[in-house]
Amino acid sequence: MISLLDTRARITGGTLSAVDAIRAARARIAERDPALGAVLRTAPTETPVPESGPLAGIAVGIKDIIDTADMATEFGSGIYAGWRPRADAAIVARLRALGAVPLAKTATTAFAGLDPAATVNPHDAGHTPGGSSSGSAAAVAAGIFPLALGTQTGGSVIRPAAFCGVAAIKPSFRLLPTVGVKTFSWALDTLGLFGASVPDIAHALALIADRPEIETAAPERPRLALCLQDFAGSADDDAVAALMRAARAAERAGAVVTDLTLPEPFAQAWRAHPTVQDVEARQALAWEYAVHRDALPPILRGQLDRAQALNTADYDAGRRDAHRARRLLKETFSDVDAILTLSSVGRAPQGLGSTGDARFNRLWTLMGVPCVNVPVPGDGLPLGVQVVARFGDDGRALAVARMIEGALLRA
Amino acid sequence: MISLLDTRARITGGTLSAVDAIRAARARIAERDPALGAVLRTAPTETPVPESGPLAGIAVGIKDIIDTADMATEFGSGIYAGWRPRADAAIVARLRALGAVPLAKTATTAFAGLDPAATVNPHDAGHTPGGSSSGSAAAVAAGIFPLALGTQTGGSVIRPAAFCGVAAIKPSFRLLPTVGVKTFSWALDTLGLFGASVPDIAHALALIADRPEIETAAPERPRLALCLQDFAGSADDDAVAALMRAARAAERAGAVVTDLTLPEPFAQAWRAHPTVQDVEARQALAWEYAVHRDALPPILRGQLDRAQALNTADYDAGRRDAHRARRLLKETFSDVDAILTLSSVGRAPQGLGSTGDARFNRLWTLMGVPCVNVPVPGDGLPLGVQVVARFGDDGRALAVARMIEGALLRA
Repeated sequence: MISLLDTRARITGGTLSAVDAIRAARARIAERDPALGAVLRTAPTETPVPESGPLAGIAVGIKDIIDTADMATEFGSGIYAGWRPRADAAIVARLRALGAVPLAKTATTAFAGLDPAATVNPHDAGHTPGGSSSGSAAAVAAGIFPLALGTQTGGSVIRPAAFCGVAAIKPSFRLLPTVGVKTFSWALDTLGLFGASVPDIAHALALIADRPEIETAAPERPRLALCLQDFAGSADDDAVAALMRAARAAERAGAVVTDLTLPEPFAQAWRAHPTVQDVEARQALAWEYAVHRDALPPILRGQLDRAQALNTADYDAGRRDAHRARRLLKETFSDVDAILTLSSVGRAPQGLGSTGDARFNRLWTLMGVPCVNVPVPGDGLPLGVQVVARFGDDGRALAVARMIEGALLRA
Repeated sequence: MISLLDTRARITGGTLSAVDAIRAARARIAERDPALGAVLRTAPTETPVPESGPLAGIAVGIKDIIDTADMATEFGSGIYAGWRPRADAAIVARLRALGAVPLAKTATTAFAGLDPAATVNPHDAGHTPGGSSSGSAAAVAAGIFPLALGTQTGGSVIRPAAFCGVAAIKPSFRLLPTVGVKTFSWALDTLGLFGASVPDIAHALALIADRPEIETAAPERPRLALCLQDFAGSADDDAVAALMRAARAAERAGAVVTDLTLPEPFAQAWRAHPTVQDVEARQALAWEYAVHRDALPPILRGQLDRAQALNTADYDAGRRDAHRARRLLKETFSDVDAILTLSSVGRAPQGLGSTGDARFNRLWTLMGVPCVNVPVPGDGLPLGVQVVARFGDDGRALAVARMIEGALLRA
């Protein structure tokens, strides 16, 4: 993979120019993407490459539900074939202001739903890369971009990161602006970052959010709560084993690890997630459903068909459940620095007909708390573990994730 | 003015067809708008007119920061001249699903900021209609539409409603979906409705939000808290007199009115509003600022220039102030059904160089609570009073507003 920090060090050290770094990224797309299907389209070759700025020389993959003024934005759907927004999304404008080059649009499932995109897993083309941020996760894993943007409504950042073996963060809700990002559920949709390592994404997030403390946070002897999320069902044996390995590695590095079983209100919030999501999706995609229902892919069409019958009372109850769990979670975090839990049910499932299961991600998206995927080194398809911190404490989630990443690599 | 409920009664009674109702609205635009400047463009004449649906026959004016698939959407700025969104905003799709016809786009200040639109006050062309929802308020006041959409980030629904003498509601935050509405500040932007009377907007809101209880709520002997918002400065004498008239009318109708002075944390939240707003506007309009700064109108350009210097610490402090005030406000509403306060500093100011002052609206927008403008009958340019209820209790705000509206008309 291409490290953002390494790339930046070479540029500031004078051994690489920003222009050459971007040119190399273009070459990697041409070379690697044909087997991957992660990149949909690339910025015009005349796109300016800033020589200065803290992200100068960084080529960024942009999930194709995020507006770009210089590239079509199709939301993974033929309904928007060739659609060209007038403006950049806020996050894209921010990347440009930092000197980065939003270089390409990456494959997304239609409207960031569950119908698979055409991308394959870079570790085994017979397996899904996960979704909905399929192209961004796969392209970073394949060493095309040092940084890519995704979004998560259920588990669309953490799951593909785990399946593809890359570091990723779904930050605190609204830490990154979603202006110009196609809405699925406004209470849940969260922009996230993929990179080669935890320090890479911490550096990028600190710059993009203009919050230097995100990169410098470092709890001395972090208290970690190991959580299996039993309410969500059980995980594969090797996913649980990876979680235990990560916990032991954290202990070796100085963390204090205790077990955590989340009480019933969290199960209730977890069950409420799809209702909150689907009532909002029914409204957010009302035009597409009313005018282009037949052009929607089957899983999303069925989901929206069923969503028409949901009522506002269920929605309100779901929001109350979420609110209660958020308050409880705040209390939980008064005793622990981070929760260590599963990123996914297991390794990327075989086949390209599904993007996998978000059951271990949904609760945290609904809670709005920062989540980091840390790849767990090993044989076969990748596995990851998820580090979760309190709302607004993205720096602590990243610091703990960095500690675990380092400890696992030293093991 | 054209009453939505009357129009619907005639349609369901068989004395008016939906097609004729929409035809009449088109005729009113042609007849009255040349002197008003409220309507920017009208839906194609071949636009279908549903004959059924609970809002069939209702012509709706749509503020031009709200996406429409069949009409250009220019956000009040030449930067978007001729811009045609692909999809309807969620609220527009919802109106169509209810049988209404989004008939025209109405004038907005640029990006819903403070630079005036070309609309004049229908009661006196030498005075501002208020902003930023200038065209929607003025067109309802001039009897063009029975219903129009606006948005409020500071006071952009309640202020123009007060200046133009129409009923309006800024509902609870996120009660109406803002998907497809140009963002200024995601923590503040709220869709609102203008109509000829409180029962009209209550009926429309209940249908659009799919919450029948909004229309049927009716506290028996409501407890009202009369509040001058001293922290925001003082109002004109006739605005205070109108507020007192409304309070006395409410008492005659059975309400119990007590005085309320909001403690310091509310003043602090009020002062934080511009910081929260402008830090978000800087991000939401980052592309426009980076690429088209010179094409921005002067007030907005200056506002964004200054916003570049704001930092995230100020923003976080502002959000904390808002959070604290929201908790306190919840307590306040455990004793009272609604707060009765000023809608504006006074009558619409003379001249078209300013849209007036949002000082008595800002706090409530930041609190996310429902606000209703009730016109106070009298001589000269209109005055209104503002009824505020607890978050999520839009029905109660409307019920109290209806009571006051009725009592004032009987006085």
